[in-house]
Order: sequence, then structure tokens, then C-alpha cells
Amino acid sequence: MAKKIRIIDTTLRDGSHAIRHTYSPEQAGKIAAALAKAGAPTIECGHGDGISGSSCQYGFMKYDEYEVLQAVLDNAGDAKVGILLLPGIGTVEDLKRAHEMGAGLVRVATHVTEADVGEQHIKMARELGMEAIGFLMMSHMEPPEKILEQAKKFESYGASAVYMADSAGAMVPDDAAARVSYLKEHLSLPVGFHAHNNLGLAIGNSLAAVNAGADYIDGTLRGLGAGAGNAPHEVLTAVFHKLGIETGEDLYAIMDAAEDNIPELGVQMIIDKYALSIGYAGVYSSFFLHAKRAADRYGLDARDILIELGRLRTVGGQEDMILDVAYRLAQQKKEK
Amino acid sequence: MAKKIRIIDTTLRDGSHAIRHTYSPEQAGKIAAALAKAGAPTIECGHGDGISGSSCQYGFMKYDEYEVLQAVLDNAGDAKVGILLLPGIGTVEDLKRAHEMGAGLVRVATHVTEADVGEQHIKMARELGMEAIGFLMMSHMEPPEKILEQAKKFESYGASAVYMADSAGAMVPDDAAARVSYLKEHLSLPVGFHAHNNLGLAIGNSLAAVNAGADYIDGTLRGLGAGAGNAPHEVLTAVFHKLGIETGEDLYAIMDAAEDNIPELGVQMIIDKYALSIGYAGVYSSFFLHAKRAADRYGLDARDILIELGRLRTVGGQEDMILDVAYRLAQQKKEK
Repeated sequence: MAKKIRIIDTTLRDGSHAIRHTYSPEQAGKIAAALAKAGAPTIECGHGDGISGSSCQYGFMKYDEYEVLQAVLDNAGDAKVGILLLPGIGTVEDLKRAHEMGAGLVRVATHVTEADVGEQHIKMARELGMEAIGFLMMSHMEPPEKILEQAKKFESYGASAVYMADSAGAMVPDDAAARVSYLKEHLSLPVGFHAHNNLGLAIGNSLAAVNAGADYIDGTLRGLGAGAGNAPHEVLTAVFHKLGIETGEDLYAIMDAAEDNIPELGVQMIIDKYALSIGYAGVYSSFFLHAKRAADRYGLDARDILIELGRLRTVGGQEDMILDVAYRLAQQKKEK
Repeated sequence: MAKKIRIIDTTLRDGSHAIRHTYSPEQAGKIAAALAKAGAPTIECGHGDGISGSSCQYGFMKYDEYEVLQAVLDNAGDAKVGILLLPGIGTVEDLKRAHEMGAGLVRVATHVTEADVGEQHIKMARELGMEAIGFLMMSHMEPPEKILEQAKKFESYGASAVYMADSAGAMVPDDAAARVSYLKEHLSLPVGFHAHNNLGLAIGNSLAAVNAGADYIDGTLRGLGAGAGNAPHEVLTAVFHKLGIETGEDLYAIMDAAEDNIPELGVQMIIDKYALSIGYAGVYSSFFLHAKRAADRYGLDARDILIELGRLRTVGGQEDMILDVAYRLAQQKKEK
């Protein structure tokens, strides 16, 4: 029997970062309809930072998130519609509302070492009868053994699958394969992989993950997403079909969904020197703007700051360290 | 000792396809200077289809190719400057002229089964004291054993290295690794790999090639190149340095070479539905325009034509088959 992979499309969630969360209900509905027509099984939508992400801190959505969600639900046909929830940003109440509207899936996203903070959300989702996936971000920062420990926590809360996200686009194929195969060996749940393209390896890493046993892979039309973007959904489908791996999708229709909807958004993903430095350094892409500002203030190259932040294993929430690092680098530069 | 890779930059040759061969001597000189400053060891330049490619059939260069070559030579510093030569397009006389001007390298490019046609050019280059590399195009079409046979021919003519080009961007990492490792096992020459990004795998395949033993890898700034483009040079450098593989280059300076020179060319590589279909089908990217015209004429989807051409293992020079294939597909469509 041919291998079968489930591609979870997140054009309308992670892709939202690339257009600064400006999807109108009409645009979102049109993209959802094109994906559904192509047989895409799962469509994630919402603010790039998940439900309730629309805020001063993470950037406001141009349209009400529930209106956008409704438009996606109205156009998703047979596809399951999902949301992302980052504990601390989204709440159990948000989850209930999305469920009432018709969302069938939640991915609860935590830093790779902090699955604990997702316990109540996974449990509530299962209580509501939703599919609930644990989503471990920045998973390049920890070895397979540590990730398994966190995945087991998600399993104990009732998660139906566990994802590893290479949030910084910092992995190479061997990294992805090592983590996936270790989890597949020691965990009975399906395993997913979410790539970013900062090192040009979104497709290479996704394919390595599938070869190592991954069951679910994330994609976005034209690779729309944070940083250098995600794995382009239509390219994933083409590569998998070429290798005889089934997706249940119509390849031409997925290609058309990209071709007919993304150019009009006026954005094209690119690996510029900062996106590349983020992958090289292995830091959150949201660090970039802070690093750029700090670099301007202290007359530094933002790349040096990003690389030092990576060396220090800085994680989301430690944005206040960025100025400290910049100050120190500036001092060192003076002393030279 | 750390592994060391030679990246051959072909922004000014394969990248020339992406801007329809419009590099001015000034632009080419500026890019060559930026590459040289970054420590790039080798810079290939000229028409996308090699020396004397400027023609009605392959597209005219906007500026005289020897003026562009001179500008590159004047700005290349310590980098070796190379040309590409496709026998039948370029001649031994062209080679002599480029050598007199100062080119130190020629890559003689033939279809993967036709190394023979490059014999005189390799021999002449060696006679002139140039580095001469055999360059096997469309190497996804043949198995490792067959490629070795052709590589041995190049070796017998005096080639100093043999390249495999994934001209259609049709390989996956296992394909690249299998070919490189077989050649490394059975050939004493250095082995090179030239990727295209039609399946989003330019970096993934290049890395697989290096892990399998490849010595030389091609890159272009921002991935500029035919079809969906090549492996971005600055991304290759970042990935190799991250893995402790030396390139002899300054990473920031290579990033800057891309950042400071490519955006002003006004083109950004993209995997659109046709570029993707070319990789999926495994056909020459130059087939696309012919297929598009034939599709319009017969009311077909150009992707169906490309995929059928791939199934028939059509190669360069068989462009006349494209209309035949379209006609037959149109007949079949009618009969349905």
C-alpha cells in the first residue's frame, strides 16, 4: 500500500504573518474554497500567532478574527478547519468559541520545553470532541530525547498527535529525520513536522521528515509564512506524488490554488540576509525587528546580534535581552 | 580536518537566463567584484546557454558577450573566471578567444549521454592550459552506472572534474546522493553538482550531494537562474558553514553580494505552476514556452504536455515533438 501523508495547510494562519494579518473574510474564504476544491484535508486559519493574537504586541488583524474564521468555515467544504492556540495569548474561552462556530481542530503551540502550559487547552479540546495536536516550537533547540519527554506530556493530556516545528528554519534534513524517527520509535501517536525556509531547506527537511516516518506535514500556498516562509504546499504535493506518496489531493488544483490566489496578495517569500541569519543563528524570526533596532542604535550589524542571541539560546519572551546583547557587543567593538 | 567545498558561482551565466541575458558590463563587473571580495573562488559568466549563445534561437544578449567577459575579468580579483561551452553553440575558436582574454576555466556541457561531443573542446582547453570540467546535463534521466560511463569519457579527454547538472530540477536528495556517491566510488576526479529549484530542493539536493562526497557545488546569488532558479549561493555558504564545511568565503560578504546587487535587477525566482511541472515531469525548462504555445493552440493545459514529454523522455533538440504531443493529446481529449 502506498504511503499516505496528511498535509495541513496553514496559508491562512502562518501565511498571515507574510501579509501582516490583513486577510479579508473574502480573501480567506476564496483561498479556503480553492484548497477544499483541491482536496486539502485540513485548513488552519487565524492570526499568525494563533487565536487572540490580534494585539498591539503581535500586530492587529485588519479584520475581526471570528469573521475571517466564519468565512473559512463557510467555504471549507469537506476540509476540517483548525486554529492555532498559544497558551498565554489564546485562552480556553477562545477555544470554546471557535469550537462552537465549527472549528474541528486545535493545535496547541508551546516552546519545545514547555508542553505543560498546554495541558488545559488540550484537555478542553478533547472534552469538546475536537482533534487536539500538541505543537512544539523551536524544536531544533533540543535533542530527540528531550522532545520525546515533552511529546509524552502532550500524549498524557490526550493529544491525538504531536508536531515538531522548526520555527527558526534552523534545521538540516538530518536534524529533522533524527527527531522524527526517534519520536516514531518511542511514541504511538502520529508525528507531524512544520518547516521554515530560512536555510532553503523547507522542502528538503519535510521530505526527510516523511522518509523518517512523519505522518503530517505543514504547507502554505507559495510558502507564505513567517521569516523566509514555510514549505510551499503545492511543491510538497508535487514531490510526494512524484515519489508515490499519497496526499489525497489533486496536484493541478493545489497548484492552481497557489497560482490563482497568492500573487494578488502582493508578497513573495524571499531568503534575504536577515531571514538567512535567523536560520543560521537559530532564533525566533520575531527577534529580527528588535535586533535591527538595537543594531541601528549601537551602530552594529543586526546579524551579529542575531547570531549572539542564538549562541545564548535565547527564546521567545526574552526580547529584553536583545538590547543587553547589543550593548555588550558594542562595548566589545569599542575595546577592539 | 574540516571538509572543504568549492562553490562555483554562476550568477553571471545561469543567472543570466532570469534576466533574459541583459547584464551590462557595469552590472556584471559589480557583481564579480562583490563575489571576489567575499572570497568566491570561481565566477562563471556569459550567456545562459554558454559562449556564443547570444542568438535568435537562444535569445540575444543585450551587450556584447566579450565586453561583459572583459568587465568580469577586470573585477574578479583572485577569483578564477570561467565560461560554459555547449558544443554546437560554442566552438573551439570561441574557447581560444575567451582563453586569450584571461578565462581560466571552461565547463563543457553536453546531454548526459553525449559526452563525446565535448571531446575536442576539453582537449583544446587542456592544451591551452585551462581548467576543463565536463558538465553532464539532465543527469536525472540516467542511472549512476550510465553517468559513470560518460564521466569516464570526459576523464579520458583530460577533464579535471565532472559535474552532474539536474537541469530540470527533477531530482530528490536520494537521486543526487546516489549519483554522486557512485561517481566518487568509481572515478578519481572531483565531482560537482549543479541544482535547480523546480521542486524546492536546490539546497536539499546540494547538501545531499556534499554529504555523498561532492567536491564542487554551483550557486547563484538569490538563486537566479533558468526555470525556478539555482541553489542560492549565500544560502549554500550559510548551510555549509553552519555544518562546519569550509568554503573559503566570508559569509556576510556573500550575503551582502546578494543583498546589494540582485534586488536592483528587478527579478525574484519563483516556483510557479509551470516551473513546478517542469521539475515534476523532468523536462528541459526551455520546453515551457513551446508547450505553452502548443497548449494555447490546441486548448490544452501546458502541464499535460510537459508531463507527457517527460514520460516520453524527450530531450533538448526534440522541440519539434512538442506540437506532435499536443496534437495527440488534443485528439485523445476529443475522443473522451
